Amino acid sequence: MSEFGTLESRVRRKSLLSKVCKAEDCIKYFSPGQDLMWSGFTPAGYPKMVPIALANHVEANNLQGQWKFNLFIGASVGAETEDRWAALDMIDRRWPYQTGKNIAAGINAGRIRMGDKHLGHFAQDAGYGFYTGNGRYDIGIIEVSAITEDCGLALTTSCGIVAEALHLCDKIIIEVNTGQPSFEGMHDIHMQQKPPHRAPFLITAADSRIGTPYVPCDPDRIVAIVESKLRDKGRAFAEQDDTSEAIAGHIMDFFSHEIKMGRLPENLLPLQSGVGSIANAVIGGLAKGPFRNLSVYTEVLQDTMLDFFDGGNLLCASSCSLSLSETPGFPRFFENWERYFDKITLRPLSISNAPEPIRRLGCIAMNTPVEIDMYAHANSTLVGGTRMINGLGGSGDFLRNGYLKIMHTPSSRPSKTDPNGISCVVPHCSHIDHTEHDLDCVVTEQGLADLRGLCPRDRALKIIEKCAHPDYKPILTDYYQMALKDTLAKGIGHEPQLWDRAFKMHLNLAQNGTMKVKNWDVKLDLCE
Amino acid sequence: MSEFGTLESRVRRKSLLSKVCKAEDCIKYFSPGQDLMWSGFTPAGYPKMVPIALANHVEANNLQGQWKFNLFIGASVGAETEDRWAALDMIDRRWPYQTGKNIAAGINAGRIRMGDKHLGHFAQDAGYGFYTGNGRYDIGIIEVSAITEDCGLALTTSCGIVAEALHLCDKIIIEVNTGQPSFEGMHDIHMQQKPPHRAPFLITAADSRIGTPYVPCDPDRIVAIVESKLRDKGRAFAEQDDTSEAIAGHIMDFFSHEIKMGRLPENLLPLQSGVGSIANAVIGGLAKGPFRNLSVYTEVLQDTMLDFFDGGNLLCASSCSLSLSETPGFPRFFENWERYFDKITLRPLSISNAPEPIRRLGCIAMNTPVEIDMYAHANSTLVGGTRMINGLGGSGDFLRNGYLKIMHTPSSRPSKTDPNGISCVVPHCSHIDHTEHDLDCVVTEQGLADLRGLCPRDRALKIIEKCAHPDYKPILTDYYQMALKDTLAKGIGHEPQLWDRAFKMHLNLAQNGTMKVKNWDVKLDLCE
Repeated sequence: MSEFGTLESRVRRKSLLSKVCKAEDCIKYFSPGQDLMWSGFTPAGYPKMVPIALANHVEANNLQGQWKFNLFIGASVGAETEDRWAALDMIDRRWPYQTGKNIAAGINAGRIRMGDKHLGHFAQDAGYGFYTGNGRYDIGIIEVSAITEDCGLALTTSCGIVAEALHLCDKIIIEVNTGQPSFEGMHDIHMQQKPPHRAPFLITAADSRIGTPYVPCDPDRIVAIVESKLRDKGRAFAEQDDTSEAIAGHIMDFFSHEIKMGRLPENLLPLQSGVGSIANAVIGGLAKGPFRNLSVYTEVLQDTMLDFFDGGNLLCASSCSLSLSETPGFPRFFENWERYFDKITLRPLSISNAPEPIRRLGCIAMNTPVEIDMYAHANSTLVGGTRMINGLGGSGDFLRNGYLKIMHTPSSRPSKTDPNGISCVVPHCSHIDHTEHDLDCVVTEQGLADLRGLCPRDRALKIIEKCAHPDYKPILTDYYQMALKDTLAKGIGHEPQLWDRAFKMHLNLAQNGTMKVKNWDVKLDLCE
Repeated sequence: MSEFGTLESRVRRKSLLSKVCKAEDCIKYFSPGQDLMWSGFTPAGYPKMVPIALANHVEANNLQGQWKFNLFIGASVGAETEDRWAALDMIDRRWPYQTGKNIAAGINAGRIRMGDKHLGHFAQDAGYGFYTGNGRYDIGIIEVSAITEDCGLALTTSCGIVAEALHLCDKIIIEVNTGQPSFEGMHDIHMQQKPPHRAPFLITAADSRIGTPYVPCDPDRIVAIVESKLRDKGRAFAEQDDTSEAIAGHIMDFFSHEIKMGRLPENLLPLQSGVGSIANAVIGGLAKGPFRNLSVYTEVLQDTMLDFFDGGNLLCASSCSLSLSETPGFPRFFENWERYFDKITLRPLSISNAPEPIRRLGCIAMNTPVEIDMYAHANSTLVGGTRMINGLGGSGDFLRNGYLKIMHTPSSRPSKTDPNGISCVVPHCSHIDHTEHDLDCVVTEQGLADLRGLCPRDRALKIIEKCAHPDYKPILTDYYQMALKDTLAKGIGHEPQLWDRAFKMHLNLAQNGTMKVKNWDVKLDLCE
């Protein structure tokens, strides 16, 4: 018997016990080309037993490249599932976000077709029937904590797109995770109709509850129930460094200033913070900092959130997933269960990332881009404008709809040959995921540029002055002044650019290993 | 006495009659450098008497360039006001949208600093105090139909940012328009608190009413009341042509297909349609077309909307403004007042363009860009990436939040020397206002590309095949295949581009008067 309760105690709808089987027994339901939906979100709450059994089956039978599936999952899932599937060439289409070395390689080599969507659009667009021919999906694989007498699914560490999957999938396979405590009661599931019958989401605070703790499920669609004792392989903690500490410092100073100016309340507004070392430093700063009675309304909760609760400044947190590290995150959480459980609300992706509550609550949105440009466009997805990293995630959901929209990045990153070979401030982003119309502030370790109320030309001067790395300030200034002079003289200078050299820094990086262009001359022969 | 009632009958709060004066008497309140808010939206419901008196004053006293103001207005206003101000060099900052030859010239020559924002952000950001040092404005100039006994303002042909202006401006000047019927009762004003105290907007249909027909106003802030008999100088009707008729045809076919597939109800979903000849052709098609019991939820109602009502297919329309032509639009509206009045709801910009109702209702968003690229990024604002036309408007509010997001454009436009010298489908947009993550369909007279569920590489093939002008299909295909081969070989090909030539079509247009590049060779010497 498991220390966390038996499978029998977790499956309270007893008629379903007849469907309990081994993961391997589920392989018969699968065939190449199927459209699959999984539970899971930025790796938490995803199915493990059945995806691993399928990977084993493909590997054992040399079916690589012959058994390919289309994967529609709330966001990324553990590397032991999707990334192993990619390594075994088991993925054709993948929507809308992923992590892993093999899956990224497959996408960028053209073997995997990835659709990169706002997470807040993905759930509803799937529900609208936009991604498959008839709008249906073959099989849903869902991890749960428990099944109620009424066949309500109590989920685990994320909500993702489970509510949609249960409607859209012809067959449902359930993994009941008895390898960890039951998360029953942490979720707030609000079922929606499609337009024109959609009702308001009456969330008025991060801890508002507007639904039920279970997702209703049609028991006749459940074809198999598999016990799992495998835990989430969560994202490892990103260490803070001097750069991220400096960025966090600028943001804390900015918050204090905004309170003084009457533009933020003393307890700020609900915080959304992305992932990575800067986000950790910001949350770490807030855990220690002067602001009290704070709340979080976001899509992913990570290890630093536990410090934030422990420090006493954080009252409650709403998220789509609880994405703690395998160690020390989850063990720490489980040991102090009482301290955290009631303060966390996990919501479906279609609610956590919906514009409606984000804008009503007035979230403070903070995310890290690949690069920003001098007019405050931001690239969140494609290195060099062509190579996919993970995807857009919810950055656009929060940056478009927040009260304050902040992008934070180191001013430079190392290239192979130059410790500051890559400037994160460029003349023009090589890919644009967030436009100049969406951002309020850009922050690097150099400083914070408050762009509110500035026209593009004033924005460029401010971003270069406050945010660019000292090595790149003269380079960017030269470009801007040259573009300004040229376009104003022609009466076309609302937002100056020169298209024969706007990407010279990017091209120079590819060719010479650094963005430090020696001068802005180009000789572009159109070769007509 | 006016045929539409006297000033005395319109100003029902009698104590305010002591503040009635001439427009010229208001000049004393103005001084250079002030921050002004006006009523008005895409030219409708804007103040005329006082702005014209100020322009006359500047002209008569040779104050050009010495009397400059910062203008914050819901959107564009009549050319006799803002564009004349621009001609007289009376504008320093202008937020967030404008129309007019002189104002565009001033912006693109660097004399006017324009901030281009999502209209749905502008109203709230102004209210948050983001655009001026202390968040306050000096003077608000507001056109009204009437003032109630309680000092509620019944507005005219638009709502714009009046609710915000009445809170934020130190002094208020009212223009009572007795030169047209009173629009009292057409508006639905919902006053909002700032986060974290903002309440839901309980709009569940285009004709939901959630507020009051008046904007509450503090009478002590009103410093002057001026009578006006001047009517809006609305946008002239854009003629339909074969291209726009063909585009409308593709869209009508697409709607029929979506109904058949169960993805749209028989009466579609609330429609948002931009301005211009394509939008007119689409609305014209719907006026005649097979779909009945339709509704409109948009930001601007134009002349074609009267045909749409008259044809019997349109039940109701919600908008921020009623922007009819001076003739024949408004006279036709006034003559058939009873037919239209109850079917129209005018809302504040902060509601008409808010993500919350647009997404809940599931609007079908349709707008015309400057150019789109093969991955479905769209440029709505800057010709050649640097020259401002009008601004973003509400295109992003609707395209991000709609149920279906459609961009329609001719496949090509004439340059000075080539009737198809400009391709509206390019390898990479020279400015990006809407990202690939936001659009579902692209339509030209050539065809409709349904991009839902396609990865970037598949999107490029589809857009070139369905939408590009025949002259440009081989040119774009060559570029795409070349970029595909190069980036896939390097394992960086999620979204292929080549930065040494992505803008060759734009550069060729500037240099040779056509985007028809003869080949894609470039010799880019970085001149290091």
